Amino acid sequence: MRLGDIAKLLEVEFAGEDKEIKGLNTLLNAKENELTFISNPKYKKYIPDTKAGAILVTKNEEKYVPKHTTALVVDDPYWSIAVLTKEFAPPLEDTNGKDAVIGKGSVVSPKATICKNSIIGDNCYIMAGVYVGSNCVIGDNTILYPNVVVYRDCVIGKNCIIHANSTIGGDGFGFATNKIGEHKKIYQNGNVVIEDDVEIGNSVTIDRAVFGSTIIKKGVHIDNLVQIGHNCEVGEFSVMVAQSGLAGSTKLGRNVVMGGQAAAAGHLEIASFNKFAARSGITKSIKEEGKTWAGFPLYEHKTWLKLQGKIAKLLKS
Amino acid sequence: MRLGDIAKLLEVEFAGEDKEIKGLNTLLNAKENELTFISNPKYKKYIPDTKAGAILVTKNEEKYVPKHTTALVVDDPYWSIAVLTKEFAPPLEDTNGKDAVIGKGSVVSPKATICKNSIIGDNCYIMAGVYVGSNCVIGDNTILYPNVVVYRDCVIGKNCIIHANSTIGGDGFGFATNKIGEHKKIYQNGNVVIEDDVEIGNSVTIDRAVFGSTIIKKGVHIDNLVQIGHNCEVGEFSVMVAQSGLAGSTKLGRNVVMGGQAAAAGHLEIASFNKFAARSGITKSIKEEGKTWAGFPLYEHKTWLKLQGKIAKLLKS
Amino acid sequence: MRLGDIAKLLEVEFAGEDKEIKGLNTLLNAKENELTFISNPKYKKYIPDTKAGAILVTKNEEKYVPKHTTALVVDDPYWSIAVLTKEFAPPLEDTNGKDAVIGKGSVVSPKATICKNSIIGDNCYIMAGVYVGSNCVIGDNTILYPNVVVYRDCVIGKNCIIHANSTIGGDGFGFATNKIGEHKKIYQNGNVVIEDDVEIGNSVTIDRAVFGSTIIKKGVHIDNLVQIGHNCEVGEFSVMVAQSGLAGSTKLGRNVVMGGQAAAAGHLEIASFNKFAARSGITKSIKEEGKTWAGFPLYEHKTWLKLQGKIAKLLKS
Repeated sequence: MRLGDIAKLLEVEFAGEDKEIKGLNTLLNAKENELTFISNPKYKKYIPDTKAGAILVTKNEEKYVPKHTTALVVDDPYWSIAVLTKEFAPPLEDTNGKDAVIGKGSVVSPKATICKNSIIGDNCYIMAGVYVGSNCVIGDNTILYPNVVVYRDCVIGKNCIIHANSTIGGDGFGFATNKIGEHKKIYQNGNVVIEDDVEIGNSVTIDRAVFGSTIIKKGVHIDNLVQIGHNCEVGEFSVMVAQSGLAGSTKLGRNVVMGGQAAAAGHLEIASFNKFAARSGITKSIKEEGKTWAGFPLYEHKTWLKLQGKIAKLLKS
Repeated sequence: MRLGDIAKLLEVEFAGEDKEIKGLNTLLNAKENELTFISNPKYKKYIPDTKAGAILVTKNEEKYVPKHTTALVVDDPYWSIAVLTKEFAPPLEDTNGKDAVIGKGSVVSPKATICKNSIIGDNCYIMAGVYVGSNCVIGDNTILYPNVVVYRDCVIGKNCIIHANSTIGGDGFGFATNKIGEHKKIYQNGNVVIEDDVEIGNSVTIDRAVFGSTIIKKGVHIDNLVQIGHNCEVGEFSVMVAQSGLAGSTKLGRNVVMGGQAAAAGHLEIASFNKFAARSGITKSIKEEGKTWAGFPLYEHKTWLKLQGKIAKLLKS
Repeated sequence: MRLGDIAKLLEVEFAGEDKEIKGLNTLLNAKENELTFISNPKYKKYIPDTKAGAILVTKNEEKYVPKHTTALVVDDPYWSIAVLTKEFAPPLEDTNGKDAVIGKGSVVSPKATICKNSIIGDNCYIMAGVYVGSNCVIGDNTILYPNVVVYRDCVIGKNCIIHANSTIGGDGFGFATNKIGEHKKIYQNGNVVIEDDVEIGNSVTIDRAVFGSTIIKKGVHIDNLVQIGHNCEVGEFSVMVAQSGLAGSTKLGRNVVMGGQAAAAGHLEIASFNKFAARSGITKSIKEEGKTWAGFPLYEHKTWLKLQGKIAKLLKS
């Protein structure tokens, strides 16, 4: 899409070359043929470092934009990027391209759907009602139980097991909101990458990234009814027990354990080998490895136990 | 169904005309060709105002029944209405009637099912494994991702997106219980109405009303694994984050935000522009608009933060 | 499988007869043609009572093994049993055997899948996208709504209703973990048994047992998005409200009520007629019947209310 067409769509003017824009991306990941945006003024210090070909900014931040980047000045960059994500969204399903390739020894139910440009590895078992969207890759020996849905562009590794009724790569929960409270969907044009040896339970939802990938690393085990938001990263051999959840962009290190109904807020980093008791509520990043936590607000588990003892004593006061 | 047949089924006698009863409804919504009931004595003051043709009451409440309404005196009106809901339940799927009408430009997967008497608007995209029950209406430009299930009689607006594995219009959770603890299902003969521009995530469950409609208003955004009970109403542009839930008959105003894993008890009214932090537990109606809340029990967010500080100090006591 | 082949697979030696081992089972349930294991030293006192034909033990516990049982000495019996569960897992779907038998009066959608060796009773309604695995039994008059998935070997009673997108018999969440944090799946070779008159909501997940059965007894009502772990037992007429959950091996008595988002830890026994308010967190067994509870940690409901009053007073301190 030409920058001129983008400007016309957003009803803004711009000075400079009418570049071809191939995609949208974050401030620090955008390449010279991509357009980026700055919505939180906190990040304005990174504007000079962007390699993006163009950027959506407010009048206030225009001055930080480097020379190689064309500024598009808008009232609300987040709303404007939402408008553009729709333009850059791929079709729901590819109608052109190659028929899916099915590896040798794989069983694919005639009641399953494998869309164009997808590749199924060897010795896979794809059961009835499964849907694998366009341009996906499923590794060797992977089992997709009935009615699993994999949205387009996702990648699943070898020796994975995904149980019935789970969804991989659904849209992340993203939208801009204007001053009168109306919302504009931010199309989620990234994907989900699941590495090898991962097992995922029933009715699990793992959202695709808005840009880039949501990543589930090697050997992770996920129980039923677990929610993983867009752009999360779940480290190797981590474990998420039933009904637990991660809000968007949170990263778990290796061998982290989330107990049942435990949840983490978004944009956190949790160091490896931390364990969270059932129903823990995590709102801050944790840098130290190997501790055990509980409660909401979160305490070290032994402290939480002590605190509950103190609270119980209030009954006698 | 004739009132005489109803009386026979319930093994009761009645005085008066053997009217034709066309349906069941609540005390204040029932029309003259409908039958109602009173299960909670708290509402007996409304009995004289009912327009119902007939009413299930206990011996104690018979005296409040107006002349135009025929009283059927039973031991347990709630159990008896449960018995009757089964008689008035429509078939699971219509076998008679018109084939579904598909609007122009719409894509319907051959692996989707659209039942009789349903109407799909223009430019919809109905993907593999979707089930749309009998007598549904789906508005223009709406996308149903794979394996979405819409139960019979539901209405979905224009420009909606419903993500994979979600269920619209499943039965509300209703049953009567007798003195020895046995349950009798209350068939849910209402529906779900979703207005325009609504987006619903993966594995969401929105239950149909027992009578009338569960309503999701224009522009609402719902994340994954959210539960909405029967007869709820979610106001315009409200937002429900992953794993949150509403018990039956609760009404959210406009632009209410329910954080992740937050939940509200049943029969509440929440004024517009209230925000609930993750894991809030709401047990009372809120009349004032525009506040921010947290915790369970629920406090204003700033009060909750202060309280957590006080609680933490107990560790030093 | 011959014990000699098992020993070879585990790279251990053994003294004694090269028996045929037909299956795996727990210490106290294993029969003479089955192999068992001891992973928690707490249970070593039961070793002399086992009837198993063979047992996986550490060097330390070998001395407790009775004469009729052959000891296989391994470093980590739990890891070794995990390795063996894969060998004893049945195929995902039977390819041999009888075509499914459908009872008279039953409606089975052409878009449903009923695998070999399964039996559907009379007057059932099996809707589009339903998957019933191999060797299942579905009782008379039972309704499976669209996209319900029943894994192989499960048994569902008469007059049951299972709502859309629910999964019965998915794998329990079980794996062994070695010293460097890698996991090994424990294949779940048991099943789920659902008795008569049970209603199950949308997107519910009820896991199959690792050995034996997960049991949902007569007349139970389960709301949407509920999780029931492997080897649980839910007593007659019990009720589980939306988004509640049971961890593995917990047993509820009769007429227990779990409120919305309430949850119980694993291996608990809850006496009949106990009620748990929404979001209760149960971590200990309850022997007394008929009480009402709330909170996490759990208190009697009236005590919890009193405690919340005391906590609120901290704001004034």
